[in-house]
Amino acid sequence: MNKRNNRRVKLTDIAAKTGFTVGTISKALQNKEGIALETRESIMKAAREIGYIANSQAGGLRSGSSKTVAIIVSDIANPLFAIEIKICVAELEKQGYRAIVMGTEERAEREEQAVISALNKNVDGVLLCPTQKSLDGIRLLQQNGMPFVLMGRRFDDLDADYVVCDDEKGGYLAGQHLAELGHQRILVLTADPRISSSGERLRGFQRAMAERGIEIDPALVVEMDASASDSVQKIEEILASNLNFTAIFAFSDYIAWETIYALNSHGVRVPEDVSIVGFDDVQSHMRFPPPLTSVHFPKRTVSTRCVEILLEQIRRGGDAPVQQVLDAHLVVRSTTAAPRKRGEG
Amino acid sequence: MNKRNNRRVKLTDIAAKTGFTVGTISKALQNKEGIALETRESIMKAAREIGYIANSQAGGLRSGSSKTVAIIVSDIANPLFAIEIKICVAELEKQGYRAIVMGTEERAEREEQAVISALNKNVDGVLLCPTQKSLDGIRLLQQNGMPFVLMGRRFDDLDADYVVCDDEKGGYLAGQHLAELGHQRILVLTADPRISSSGERLRGFQRAMAERGIEIDPALVVEMDASASDSVQKIEEILASNLNFTAIFAFSDYIAWETIYALNSHGVRVPEDVSIVGFDDVQSHMRFPPPLTSVHFPKRTVSTRCVEILLEQIRRGGDAPVQQVLDAHLVVRSTTAAPRKRGEG
Repeated sequence: MNKRNNRRVKLTDIAAKTGFTVGTISKALQNKEGIALETRESIMKAAREIGYIANSQAGGLRSGSSKTVAIIVSDIANPLFAIEIKICVAELEKQGYRAIVMGTEERAEREEQAVISALNKNVDGVLLCPTQKSLDGIRLLQQNGMPFVLMGRRFDDLDADYVVCDDEKGGYLAGQHLAELGHQRILVLTADPRISSSGERLRGFQRAMAERGIEIDPALVVEMDASASDSVQKIEEILASNLNFTAIFAFSDYIAWETIYALNSHGVRVPEDVSIVGFDDVQSHMRFPPPLTSVHFPKRTVSTRCVEILLEQIRRGGDAPVQQVLDAHLVVRSTTAAPRKRGEG
Repeated sequence: MNKRNNRRVKLTDIAAKTGFTVGTISKALQNKEGIALETRESIMKAAREIGYIANSQAGGLRSGSSKTVAIIVSDIANPLFAIEIKICVAELEKQGYRAIVMGTEERAEREEQAVISALNKNVDGVLLCPTQKSLDGIRLLQQNGMPFVLMGRRFDDLDADYVVCDDEKGGYLAGQHLAELGHQRILVLTADPRISSSGERLRGFQRAMAERGIEIDPALVVEMDASASDSVQKIEEILASNLNFTAIFAFSDYIAWETIYALNSHGVRVPEDVSIVGFDDVQSHMRFPPPLTSVHFPKRTVSTRCVEILLEQIRRGGDAPVQQVLDAHLVVRSTTAAPRKRGEG
């Protein structure tokens, strides 16, 4: 075994082993004509034995195709993105593509840096969950004619492909569900309003409240960091402030779970004391307890459609942008109930 | 904006914009000598404006360095691996490397395919959590002198770099904790015994039982799929079989959470009816409820050490293998308690 020689197996190694010329070996491995079957087979066997793997980068550079796609999300470890990455990687693999994965932590400069890396590495396309704090990264993609699809977030006035879910409807359904249970004072744990999913979910929630004549106390709309794991501390601050609320609508399941963790550690029970609705429905893929009422984000469809649209763009180019809004629905599980009446419990 | 032209910005575009020759522009962008400061600055400005990004692959091919590393884990969406990928990606980025991420789903043929892709894509090195069901992938890495580090799992008799945690001790601590609480019939949700972390954790658990003279009922040692999300079904089968146990030691936090989900949905409370200990301590990074008693797997140290060792191998080569076993400790949270006495509750 040539361990630690840092030396790739080359055609000359097959030549040394078989006695055939590099030209013959190259033709045989590429399945070109004019090579006897027996010769081809003995070359293939030798190649397998010594572990020869063609380096596709050389060919890729010539053909302009690297068969590599960049996936840029905000937080690689957030279960929603982890599931999306897993599905995208599997879908890309089926089509012979591999994925370079990068995280922005919701910072515009990291997004631009990730885009520069993607261009630098000569990827064929980019799947991007944009921070929406700047267009710099997206401009670079456009200037360089790099195919890309926005995943889960969109811009109102940008001529770019995207696949999102109906976030406004999702926010509406969450608000409607809590209002119908009898909740009036609902804490909204939202994210940066520049993020389309955040703004649209909040608008849908507001519409559900407005339809029912429920006023929203501005103190109950709290902006969280969509990427960092800081929900526990934020919730502890809110609990310390003695804000009065009976239910919570969280921007994501991740935030919802951290919130439940913090509430429980302060003796606040879910749903007996406080109801909570998340967003993403991570439990359709991974059963983390407790069974969480959540708006279903169609993770598999969003991911597979994004890959399909991107590969279509890469292979055939695209004229009209493909902009797709998938339906959202509410999955009621065990974290929501009617509010306790005063003196109860 | 050259949108959807699928055409990268080239040096000739900067030439057309500035009037300088491609040779001058190339020198200026590479910071070579013999270019007036003013010329350099106007070229840099034009390059920025039209979005020129150098394609490092061409140079990379010549220099033999792609500044790309492959990360191959079993399940990209499992929170443990998602956290490890996030840390590795961030650490690699600090050193100018990007990561191609691939999943094996614990299948040997997918591992080999991932290794072939890595070689194919001319990566500089590989971080691998091996399936341990075959050595084919690892042999290919060795035959091609590809630097690699095993992450979280190891082979007894393989001359390869690895960073693992003391899984035997971790299993021992879990068993000791449950035994000291008074549990005698403990369900062990283990993984494929060929996986070193699985085998070693089980051995440590067995040692803790043996020291206390507690016999292990073979029916209570159940092999789970370490990658798939099938714990809920398995637990339902176990509950239906009327196996008698008061505590559970789970191979991973992921399996522990799915188990709690399944137990709760059948009215079994944790820890009142059944105690449970996980492994990985995902909650040191992400606070998913409930607060889970778990063996701390040093995710940050394992990930950063793996990256350091790999880059050292890439840059300087390695003579003696670096094989590191990090300490494990138990984090007691809320999912473990003394067993209920008969008739209680």
